[in-house]
Amino acid sequence: MSQHGSQISDSVRPIIWSDDSLQLLDQRRLPQEVRYLVCNTAADVAFAIRQMVVRGAPAIGITAAYGAVLAAREAWRQNRENWQQAILADLELLAGSRPTAVNLQWALSRMQSLFAGITANPVPVLLAEAGRIHTEDINANQQMGRLGAALLGENSRVLTHCNTGSLATGGFGTALGVIRTAWQNGLLEQVYAGETRPWFQGARLTAWELAQDRIPVTLIADSAAAYLMSRGQVNRVIVGADRIVANGDVANKIGTYSLAVAARYHGIGLMVVAPSTTFDLATADGSHIPIEDRGPSEIVHYAGQQLAPAEAAAWNPVFDITPANLVDVIVTEKGVIHQPDRQKIADLLG
Amino acid sequence: MSQHGSQISDSVRPIIWSDDSLQLLDQRRLPQEVRYLVCNTAADVAFAIRQMVVRGAPAIGITAAYGAVLAAREAWRQNRENWQQAILADLELLAGSRPTAVNLQWALSRMQSLFAGITANPVPVLLAEAGRIHTEDINANQQMGRLGAALLGENSRVLTHCNTGSLATGGFGTALGVIRTAWQNGLLEQVYAGETRPWFQGARLTAWELAQDRIPVTLIADSAAAYLMSRGQVNRVIVGADRIVANGDVANKIGTYSLAVAARYHGIGLMVVAPSTTFDLATADGSHIPIEDRGPSEIVHYAGQQLAPAEAAAWNPVFDITPANLVDVIVTEKGVIHQPDRQKIADLLG
Repeated sequence: MSQHGSQISDSVRPIIWSDDSLQLLDQRRLPQEVRYLVCNTAADVAFAIRQMVVRGAPAIGITAAYGAVLAAREAWRQNRENWQQAILADLELLAGSRPTAVNLQWALSRMQSLFAGITANPVPVLLAEAGRIHTEDINANQQMGRLGAALLGENSRVLTHCNTGSLATGGFGTALGVIRTAWQNGLLEQVYAGETRPWFQGARLTAWELAQDRIPVTLIADSAAAYLMSRGQVNRVIVGADRIVANGDVANKIGTYSLAVAARYHGIGLMVVAPSTTFDLATADGSHIPIEDRGPSEIVHYAGQQLAPAEAAAWNPVFDITPANLVDVIVTEKGVIHQPDRQKIADLLG
Repeated sequence: MSQHGSQISDSVRPIIWSDDSLQLLDQRRLPQEVRYLVCNTAADVAFAIRQMVVRGAPAIGITAAYGAVLAAREAWRQNRENWQQAILADLELLAGSRPTAVNLQWALSRMQSLFAGITANPVPVLLAEAGRIHTEDINANQQMGRLGAALLGENSRVLTHCNTGSLATGGFGTALGVIRTAWQNGLLEQVYAGETRPWFQGARLTAWELAQDRIPVTLIADSAAAYLMSRGQVNRVIVGADRIVANGDVANKIGTYSLAVAARYHGIGLMVVAPSTTFDLATADGSHIPIEDRGPSEIVHYAGQQLAPAEAAAWNPVFDITPANLVDVIVTEKGVIHQPDRQKIADLLG
């Protein structure tokens, strides 16, 4: 079978279909080690998503699509007459692997919508579709990069959060795609990245990924962001999203809401960059978005070290909700939405 | 010589004078290990302050006072005729060990003010003075605990930051002293502690210290604080201070300003708890406070692990400035100041 993902213009390739299997760059091991995890079954893929071998809303969606291909291969082996039934348990397993990013459900629905029309071995048709989802995501990222960078002035001093780059998407990135494009266009004076506790996506992934492309970045403790703003060192906050609902409320990595509040207090614009696949127009507002709590362990331990007494309690929501009124602009591949509200979102994406 | 610090009503004793030496609970090793570092010279003490064996503005002041005793012992050994001259290099070493907390300078000045009146071996006089500084700090903490707790209602849901407890003071604590007293008085429904990157004082020290006293606490990533507030789960933020200047601007652990902005946005009161020794009325406003930058290593590594690529840049100010207009009340041992300003501060402390 052919390789997908080779269109990525930057040097990091997180999701590769090759040799009849899905190969995922194991993001738990970065920046120490570049190692791919090979997935041969849907269960392997669900495990990889749950354990954050791969993370980032668009990347999870693409990964789940390839997971559906592996599920279909197994279902077809087991029951050629009724593979559409045999696959359902695996699809449920994939759908339940993480709750907040809506791209996961979107990708599985898109794959499933083809089932009725398939009359022979489903693998070629579904693999082609997963490849299209992958390619479309990269193209959307590059389009968002252009649209977002066009909103930035010269000498931009940008703060971003978590990892929204090639590692979080099919390739190129959402918020980091805008930053990448702005860098190529000579618009960036400085990029700051919050380290993004508890999983350190900013330190481990964003700093690593930008280093591959020789884009300089300065890390900060997440809690230093507001102070950085007060010193006039940031004039734009750019983040991704795990789900944007009908009224424009945004679920994204924990800490995004804190940045949004601080940005508003300092009169700094907040740009959210997300493909149309991240929108969930069936959900009215952010209060209905399920927020994953990954439990105390990520707060209490790091790298085998006890950070807090073993008996310490911790609250560990890994996403938060930023209300639409704190978002200055949403950038999608279909266009940009300033001061987002229900009507503008419906007009562009409905 | 006698032991000081035995008046501490809680179970943690961070600073002990015993057997003619200063014994400091090594806070770098908590919560894994309770081990005391023995200091026999002023250089040992300066090293301990610089390396954060002991930290917290009041604790640094007390430690420096004992350091001056060790310096005087050595100066007296070397040059009985002119020990007041021989001690100066050591005092400078102590004074330069950390820049932001003003208690350090205050304690050294207080010790130095006795020098002229000393005619024989200075050690007994200076040791008695260091012990008084220590005891006065504990008494001030207990008084602040009473005054601060009196401002809290029943079912308080409190968020604190860094460590401001026995480990940061002579004993009992500033912000954590208020929380301790409120807990004893049955006023607390919930205590949240920010983990406090990059040094994890909240996770490593506050959670450990409260566990010693069986006060339940829930840790959060620092960046989750604003989201916690948006859910109505916090009705008071209580922090300490490393320096409060004439107009009421507050230097405190990095992240305090972010909490202050978020608290104001959510209509939640910010209480700053600090003894009069933390005030620096000779400095007009926060823009003149030196802010220590401890360099990228604390951001880029943890416990021997690389958190970010080795070449990553980082900005690591370990304090920030919260302007007086975001502070709702300052609690000192001499009284409380609501909506602090230059005049009210001068009236109480000038």
